[in-house]
Amino acid sequence: MLDTVALSPDIDVLMNDIGRKAKAAARPLGFASTDAKNRALHAMADAIVANSAHILDENAKDLKDIEGSETLASFVDRLTLNDKRIAEMAEGIRAIAALADPVGEIIAAWDRPNGLKIERVRTPLGVIGVIFESRPNVTADAGALCLKAGNAVILRCGSDSRRSSQAIHACLVDGLKAAGLPEHAIQLVPVTDRAAVGAMLRGLDGAIDVIVPRGGKSLVARVQSEARVPVFAHLEGLCHIYVDASADIEMAKKIVVNAKMRRTGICGAAETLLVDGAAIGTHLTPLLEVLTEAGCEIRGSATVLKVAPGVKSATEEDWTTEYLDSIISVAVVDGISGAIAHIQKYSSNHTEAVIAEDPAVVERFFTEVDSAILLHNASTQFADGGEFGMGAEIGIATGKMHARGPVGVEQLTSFKYRVRGAGQIRP
Amino acid sequence: MLDTVALSPDIDVLMNDIGRKAKAAARPLGFASTDAKNRALHAMADAIVANSAHILDENAKDLKDIEGSETLASFVDRLTLNDKRIAEMAEGIRAIAALADPVGEIIAAWDRPNGLKIERVRTPLGVIGVIFESRPNVTADAGALCLKAGNAVILRCGSDSRRSSQAIHACLVDGLKAAGLPEHAIQLVPVTDRAAVGAMLRGLDGAIDVIVPRGGKSLVARVQSEARVPVFAHLEGLCHIYVDASADIEMAKKIVVNAKMRRTGICGAAETLLVDGAAIGTHLTPLLEVLTEAGCEIRGSATVLKVAPGVKSATEEDWTTEYLDSIISVAVVDGISGAIAHIQKYSSNHTEAVIAEDPAVVERFFTEVDSAILLHNASTQFADGGEFGMGAEIGIATGKMHARGPVGVEQLTSFKYRVRGAGQIRP
Repeated sequence: MLDTVALSPDIDVLMNDIGRKAKAAARPLGFASTDAKNRALHAMADAIVANSAHILDENAKDLKDIEGSETLASFVDRLTLNDKRIAEMAEGIRAIAALADPVGEIIAAWDRPNGLKIERVRTPLGVIGVIFESRPNVTADAGALCLKAGNAVILRCGSDSRRSSQAIHACLVDGLKAAGLPEHAIQLVPVTDRAAVGAMLRGLDGAIDVIVPRGGKSLVARVQSEARVPVFAHLEGLCHIYVDASADIEMAKKIVVNAKMRRTGICGAAETLLVDGAAIGTHLTPLLEVLTEAGCEIRGSATVLKVAPGVKSATEEDWTTEYLDSIISVAVVDGISGAIAHIQKYSSNHTEAVIAEDPAVVERFFTEVDSAILLHNASTQFADGGEFGMGAEIGIATGKMHARGPVGVEQLTSFKYRVRGAGQIRP
Repeated sequence: MLDTVALSPDIDVLMNDIGRKAKAAARPLGFASTDAKNRALHAMADAIVANSAHILDENAKDLKDIEGSETLASFVDRLTLNDKRIAEMAEGIRAIAALADPVGEIIAAWDRPNGLKIERVRTPLGVIGVIFESRPNVTADAGALCLKAGNAVILRCGSDSRRSSQAIHACLVDGLKAAGLPEHAIQLVPVTDRAAVGAMLRGLDGAIDVIVPRGGKSLVARVQSEARVPVFAHLEGLCHIYVDASADIEMAKKIVVNAKMRRTGICGAAETLLVDGAAIGTHLTPLLEVLTEAGCEIRGSATVLKVAPGVKSATEEDWTTEYLDSIISVAVVDGISGAIAHIQKYSSNHTEAVIAEDPAVVERFFTEVDSAILLHNASTQFADGGEFGMGAEIGIATGKMHARGPVGVEQLTSFKYRVRGAGQIRP
């Protein structure tokens, strides 16, 4: 790869070469044994622990580069590694090793009257392209998750985290070599030119099967609009929580505060609270109180303002804003029908919750709302692969094709049909 | 819709209006009852039978238009309707009514240690765009199949079959109305301008979730290269059949002749025969003999020509040609490894068969070949949704995303997660 860089500065040539190597690596990886993949993963974790001093040195250089620039504290936090985070990265890889291998799993099997035995069996997708921003640990997470599902992966990190990502990537390659797996199974794009992203979005001459963007809204929006290959992503998590008049108010208070305030910056955080118009006296006031006590700013619809005159008025923009902050928009709706209409108009199809004791309300919500994750009497912050029991996830998808909701190892696979006969010919 | 045509000749305006109406229809259709969908399907079949004279009249006009032009007999045959074909069309719709409704089916369910109950449940995909050529019966097949899976569909027929398709489409709309389902659930594009196809391939402003092309290679190629939305299709079925030295020769003879000659024009017809180099004496000669007796032209590799000097020599182009005719290319390969290498180089990832008694050979074939359908000791012509027991199919897909192999009602669905709690908040 270094030769290619030296011989040709053309990004497309470099990138297509990476694509070819990934495709070549994907083939043997597709039927590599579970044992070999797990040995590679443990060797990666070992290498990360053994090389933690080097990783931290490289991370310090990355951090030094942004020193003095007008950088958000949250950005610096995402970029920063320390001993604890390195240990967690290694443990994360070992946890992926502990997951069941999805490849080869028989998803369905049936016999035909003519004696043919049909099986649908999981296979890897092939080559995954992961485009991420500042978090260097995505290098390890995404690399390990794709490997477990038998896929080759092409990682493209943000320029700010390039040294950290390179140091981590070197450990992953050590692990692949230790287990005798193809070293191009996990490649890190060696240039941070934006044109490299464009080349990946065009699919590297058919080499990339799916793109996973890991980053903020502007990155995801670019990927979704430019990609010529399928994308697993959500643009935003504009999650709603509807409190019905039949809801247990004590349960509703606990869930609403948790859904909004536990962590405000994650995609499963609630952004809009919808309260049943039949429950203004019983439910709306106590919910506004607990949110305010928890330090949350409220932006209310006209009816909310009548009940709580001190509250700021919500504009149309508030219903479409993913705050990712201690702010919530609150509307009074005409029962479950009003809640469904509001969600259909404004939802990003990520996650929505209904708090209700009336089973008819729950069933209508579960039937008519078509977001990836629907919850009854539970916090929207459960929208997470780990919380679903899927192990690690590479992200959450809101598209309708192939993967939806948390994208874990199973969702990174395709399938094929195996048909066993005894000489059958078609009449 | 006619008003829109009258007011604006702009195809994009017309098509986006069709897209909006499809999306609006898809919402209530997504949770329409199984009973309502089945009533609509039976009413459609009834309407087709009741209106068969009108459908045949319109079909006669379509056929008259192409009279005298240099049209292939096979093209005329595909366009022609008669009483038998109309009866089959109606029966096909009733067979789709008889299939299980995939929408609402719980695909997976599990409980979490914190008491959350998670279900993955099938939902419709949304809006399907079907682009087809001369066969008017696709109007009925595709319309009925999409409806059963709860999807709205936008049908775009070829110009040659437009009157026949319109007459059939009117019957489908009658059926929708009879069951109280939205009439825009099945729309037929009222213009045959090629720009209408372009608009569909761009997704009609986000309205179309997936495109299904039904037609020849040039249509599928255009759709695959231009589509900005996912496509369920195969470009070609370049199917291989490998006969191992361990194969029962009598079984191999029957299967090879059936795979090639039963119907040569379908995508599951075998195009290349690969014979184990260890079986030249025992297997190659008899296989060449039965193929020749069955009227098949043979194009052989150098080794084949040594054994059968009269045979025509295969060129590089033969290994990449889907003949869809009574011609087969034949190569001698170095056992299962050679067969896998040949298939990986030339396959269209549609369907491949292995004829062998050695289980190790079968397992390597099943593991290392990544085509949508792999068969052992059975004919490649079983590559069909009906033969798989899936009921009707809208086509066969060779992509790795979402749908692969026969695309029936189940494959025309997505899913969502329903999570039931009892007040759980995330720690």
